[in-house]
Amino acid sequence: MTANILITPGDGIGPEIVAEARKLLEALRDDFGFDCTLEEAPIGGAGYEAHGKPLPEETLALAREADAILLGAVGGPRWEQLDRPLRPERGLLAIRAELGLFGNLRPAILYPQLAEASSLRHEIVAGLDIMIVRELTGGIYFGEPRGIRRLENGERQGYNTMVYSESEIDRVGRLAFDIASKRGSRVCSVDKANVLEVSELWREVMERVARDYPGVELSHMYVDNAAMQLVRAPKQFDVVVTSNLFGDVLSDCAAMLTGSIGMLPSASLDVNSKGLYEPVHGSAPDIAGKGLANPLATLLSVAMMLRYSLDQGALADRVQQAVGDVLNQGLRTPDIAARQSRTVSTAEMGDAVVAAL
Amino acid sequence: MTANILITPGDGIGPEIVAEARKLLEALRDDFGFDCTLEEAPIGGAGYEAHGKPLPEETLALAREADAILLGAVGGPRWEQLDRPLRPERGLLAIRAELGLFGNLRPAILYPQLAEASSLRHEIVAGLDIMIVRELTGGIYFGEPRGIRRLENGERQGYNTMVYSESEIDRVGRLAFDIASKRGSRVCSVDKANVLEVSELWREVMERVARDYPGVELSHMYVDNAAMQLVRAPKQFDVVVTSNLFGDVLSDCAAMLTGSIGMLPSASLDVNSKGLYEPVHGSAPDIAGKGLANPLATLLSVAMMLRYSLDQGALADRVQQAVGDVLNQGLRTPDIAARQSRTVSTAEMGDAVVAAL
Ligand SMILES: CC(C)[C@H](C(=O)O)[C@@H](O)C(=O)O
Ligand SMILES: CC(C)[C@H](C(=O)O)[C@@H](O)C(=O)O
Repeated sequence: MTANILITPGDGIGPEIVAEARKLLEALRDDFGFDCTLEEAPIGGAGYEAHGKPLPEETLALAREADAILLGAVGGPRWEQLDRPLRPERGLLAIRAELGLFGNLRPAILYPQLAEASSLRHEIVAGLDIMIVRELTGGIYFGEPRGIRRLENGERQGYNTMVYSESEIDRVGRLAFDIASKRGSRVCSVDKANVLEVSELWREVMERVARDYPGVELSHMYVDNAAMQLVRAPKQFDVVVTSNLFGDVLSDCAAMLTGSIGMLPSASLDVNSKGLYEPVHGSAPDIAGKGLANPLATLLSVAMMLRYSLDQGALADRVQQAVGDVLNQGLRTPDIAARQSRTVSTAEMGDAVVAAL
Repeated sequence: MTANILITPGDGIGPEIVAEARKLLEALRDDFGFDCTLEEAPIGGAGYEAHGKPLPEETLALAREADAILLGAVGGPRWEQLDRPLRPERGLLAIRAELGLFGNLRPAILYPQLAEASSLRHEIVAGLDIMIVRELTGGIYFGEPRGIRRLENGERQGYNTMVYSESEIDRVGRLAFDIASKRGSRVCSVDKANVLEVSELWREVMERVARDYPGVELSHMYVDNAAMQLVRAPKQFDVVVTSNLFGDVLSDCAAMLTGSIGMLPSASLDVNSKGLYEPVHGSAPDIAGKGLANPLATLLSVAMMLRYSLDQGALADRVQQAVGDVLNQGLRTPDIAARQSRTVSTAEMGDAVVAAL
């Protein structure tokens, strides 16, 4: 079975980091018998430049046909003055919605080789390995009604709707429990049920889902407390499941605990485990084109793709192992450079991982 | 002019920590010529026990008459099975709404004497002094419509509305700029304007407010990035202004950076600077009645009350100075105990602060 992979480089450092991922995929294809095709299409600012919108029809059509999509990153100052619907990040929101990528997996892992990079004390974060499961196609991101209206007294009012149905909550809950049952068997569901009705329903459905997973322990936490606990004692968490907006904030907070977001991949899955894979970091326009970008989060996104969408767990292990090896060799891009390490370029890092396969 | 102060002890450790605050206020009255009256009334679980609801009418009436209110903390397992409208935290939400306490000030300050308590590396947090200004009577906490409804397909759906009008944003914006002009002259407004219309309007109004404060610098940050930056480099912030929900999460995150939330006070102000003052920490039912609670956040809440509502800046300074002195003496309640410190009880700590005045 051939795996059809679509690569969408996007903006800023996107093209240079996905170039390394392409090298990796080609090596897996040529030297390890991994049967795949690789297509490429623009998204974000690049989509706007090529076809006048951040998610061009051609790109969406290819994405629908693909088994998995690898995205670099989107956004940059060049497109910040555009009308909102034309801005790069709208391409990202649109592809999530169009493909039904409801399940966003954001691991926060501290690589022991990079422990120094964390702003937290060593004992607080050593060995950190959390999986945040964020709902990605619902909640206040997509809820209606929304807009800016004029009130009777003449002033304007902005409004958005945070909304979840039982089936949306159930679906992402099951994803989180499935994942937890393959790791630490604990799910912490984060909400604001002491204030929000939408969270009340969230909590109730999570309780119901939990009954189908007797081997997995469910706990609940308010979002404000979760933000505190991430800073105080992040290792208490195994899998965290939460809504779109809370997940946006908490997953970035959790990622930053490691101090090396240049290392963190993510997956966004549909109901059939088709997925879009991207590094957690952004498009970093300030360093674009200079060979300074860290490609490892993108290479680790390839590993996630192999594992979650393409049923190639052994190859995924191999890629992760190779990344660990280059870190052990002391190779570092500038963002993770430290005493005693050897600073390498984006391409040198990619080459080293391929060599270590 | 007599200052009429209402004390609402609340639940858990609430009564024992406000007892120390009462000692302090009486000392200021008896020995420092501070002209005040002190009333007391139940709120939260205590309000429910006394009058069947978390914000009894009698308490609200006294609160309306008072110039300032000191709250201990609300909540506990005893009331968790009650119907939602009867639960302790509803008393807190109700008093905020009834008194129009729109401006919530939450300082996150690292006391140099307690630097060890932080889970962050010393150089990241040493000298930390942020003021978070959270909008407290609007946004998704109070937005309508809200509820749980049944959809045509039979499943239920929960929904809440995040809503802000221009005047609400303007008001809290001015509060933040006023405060910033008395400290570091920088305001960072946190929103999610790349996704939410309500944040678009928020950003626009903040820009407009900024024009009236040429000496204060305004920047904008997305809430996910703000959570990251708090962990990465919190000292970059001076004043942060944000909406009710984002402020709930970010202020708790910021508080936890210090590692000693037993030290952090808060103020909630109306348009006339009348305010409700309370420690940031909760009611800690597990240690209630044991003399283990740290009263310093409550005593520092008294200092905030003196400064923001009662126009007694000199007395506020004196209280803060006294708290610094007892820390320098090495006195610590168990939550902030460290090597070389002397562990004292709630009452001993309160006495020590009064003695140090
Ligand atoms: C770019 C933005 C719309 C997006 C989001 O908020 O989901 C990003 O922050 C993310 O987390 O992928
Ligand atoms: C108790 C709860 C309703 C409250 C809130 O969310 O505002 C608390 O977390 C706070 O921050 O004061």
